[in-house]
Amino acid sequence: MEVQNRLIEIINNAIKDISYPSVAPGLFDPIKYTLSVGGKRIRPLLTLMSTSLFTEDINPAISPAIGIEVFHNFTLLHDDLMDNALIRRKQPTVHVKWDANTAILSGDAMQILAYKLVAASPSEHLKQVIDLFSKTALEICEGQQFDMEFESREDVPEGEYIEMIRLKTAVLLGCALKVGAIIGGAENKDADLLYTFGEKIGLAFQLKDDLLDVYGDPKVFGKNIGGDILNNKKTFLLIKALELSSEKDNRQIRGKLKEVNFSAEEKIEFFTSVYNNSGAKNECGKRMEEYFNMGLKALKRVNIETEKKYELEKLASQLMYRES
Amino acid sequence: MEVQNRLIEIINNAIKDISYPSVAPGLFDPIKYTLSVGGKRIRPLLTLMSTSLFTEDINPAISPAIGIEVFHNFTLLHDDLMDNALIRRKQPTVHVKWDANTAILSGDAMQILAYKLVAASPSEHLKQVIDLFSKTALEICEGQQFDMEFESREDVPEGEYIEMIRLKTAVLLGCALKVGAIIGGAENKDADLLYTFGEKIGLAFQLKDDLLDVYGDPKVFGKNIGGDILNNKKTFLLIKALELSSEKDNRQIRGKLKEVNFSAEEKIEFFTSVYNNSGAKNECGKRMEEYFNMGLKALKRVNIETEKKYELEKLASQLMYRES
Repeated sequence: MEVQNRLIEIINNAIKDISYPSVAPGLFDPIKYTLSVGGKRIRPLLTLMSTSLFTEDINPAISPAIGIEVFHNFTLLHDDLMDNALIRRKQPTVHVKWDANTAILSGDAMQILAYKLVAASPSEHLKQVIDLFSKTALEICEGQQFDMEFESREDVPEGEYIEMIRLKTAVLLGCALKVGAIIGGAENKDADLLYTFGEKIGLAFQLKDDLLDVYGDPKVFGKNIGGDILNNKKTFLLIKALELSSEKDNRQIRGKLKEVNFSAEEKIEFFTSVYNNSGAKNECGKRMEEYFNMGLKALKRVNIETEKKYELEKLASQLMYRES
Repeated sequence: MEVQNRLIEIINNAIKDISYPSVAPGLFDPIKYTLSVGGKRIRPLLTLMSTSLFTEDINPAISPAIGIEVFHNFTLLHDDLMDNALIRRKQPTVHVKWDANTAILSGDAMQILAYKLVAASPSEHLKQVIDLFSKTALEICEGQQFDMEFESREDVPEGEYIEMIRLKTAVLLGCALKVGAIIGGAENKDADLLYTFGEKIGLAFQLKDDLLDVYGDPKVFGKNIGGDILNNKKTFLLIKALELSSEKDNRQIRGKLKEVNFSAEEKIEFFTSVYNNSGAKNECGKRMEEYFNMGLKALKRVNIETEKKYELEKLASQLMYRES
């Protein structure tokens, strides 16, 4: 825990130290608010841990690490607006606390701020870092686009779902790790292995999210259980349940999805038992483990002493076996 | 005209050649649409003309020039959404043709695309170019923030108005020129002078816009005359008219601004005669000329042969004496 806590302190201090032009508080207050509300700071943690695999001096990686965290929080800000989500991390979202136009414009400024921080990478690595960051940022937009398109589609094949969460969630973890490796002076091959580690862990992380939404402990989870079910969200669980069920059960599930008047409790209960009985829950857990192990395998192949990898392995396990 | 046309052809071809990932057409179609609708391509023109002051090889400047144009069009896309503007360049805006969420997300992707193109600057200039671009992009957000805040304010002092249009419009012209100069290998002093040239021309350009909205020829202008008046927009003309009018006239003007039921024709007529009689029109024209001349003076001081500056001078004059 000690290493993680020390790094998180560095990260939070660097976030507090971001310099904003003083002339337009109306533009920057929502950014400061978004960044102060917290979160696990997983992405900058991954960057700094990755750098420290290759060098003891993590300072040059701090600004880009923070840039990646700012970008992540920007995507949450705009996604919450697009999804009309009212609460994030137990606090009102920006478009609720201010308004939609503020959320749009502050988000835009936040994206520029992210680039500004990422562009403070050491000049010898700048081109490689910024190109990777742009590629990743565009992929995240594509992921969000697919996620939105899925809402109005009846059937989403499993492969498309996995590709969506890869783009929307996993690539940024890969990018965070690879940026850290590049700045640490890693060989290309090792930087790529760390990207793969992050990408696979990211896929597992998102499947865990799908599971927690149904099976999480409400006391620990921090948000209400069953949100995805009530929103008819096409999660891995739902897609797999439809795939594994008989034609008759399929009709029943599709009927439930179309019901307009329903008791929330009953609907959650219905789908939970569908996920249990169809084998979807097991499949989801299995798939999660698979990606987790693929990630660990890539990490093992990184050409440095095994002891140095301990912190990253630990963080990956924490993400995988987390309860919130 | 020949040089301009040749450069505009290069610009439009480069815009057509932008490569988009093929996987998410729903994300990229609105971007292609926005870029195909046209516009005068002033910013990339300025970049390429600026580069060609210092070198014959303008190729390394093409990608960043296009990046600046993409960024400009991104700001229009999001601004139109925030202002709920329905038409841009005689075509439906993105949030009308698609929807608000598409406008948000495609705009976000467009901003990333802009950075991707700007980051294709020659590596020896990358750091300087990207830092200038980020600084400018943040300033443009600040300008838009001020513009939105002005809507709900009774009095906007002239100085604040000028600062708003400097941020919202002028700095990007300065940036376009300076980026071109940097890539052309200019001395810092000359690059800064070209920035000043662009900034001052940009201020004059925006004041011309204020004038055209009232005094433009509807047949040439391309949009309806009096739009700013009908929207109670705090333009230089309105601010100056309030400043120059007697207390009695002031009360009458403020009364007109608050009227809810009015004939559009009458309101436009009223304000046009206020601008004529108060001297606001003259003041606006005078100020425009002042900035124009300040810009030309900066250009004159750039340390290269006078003949080479001819194309930039001509473009500046066209912008100043344009009818649309």
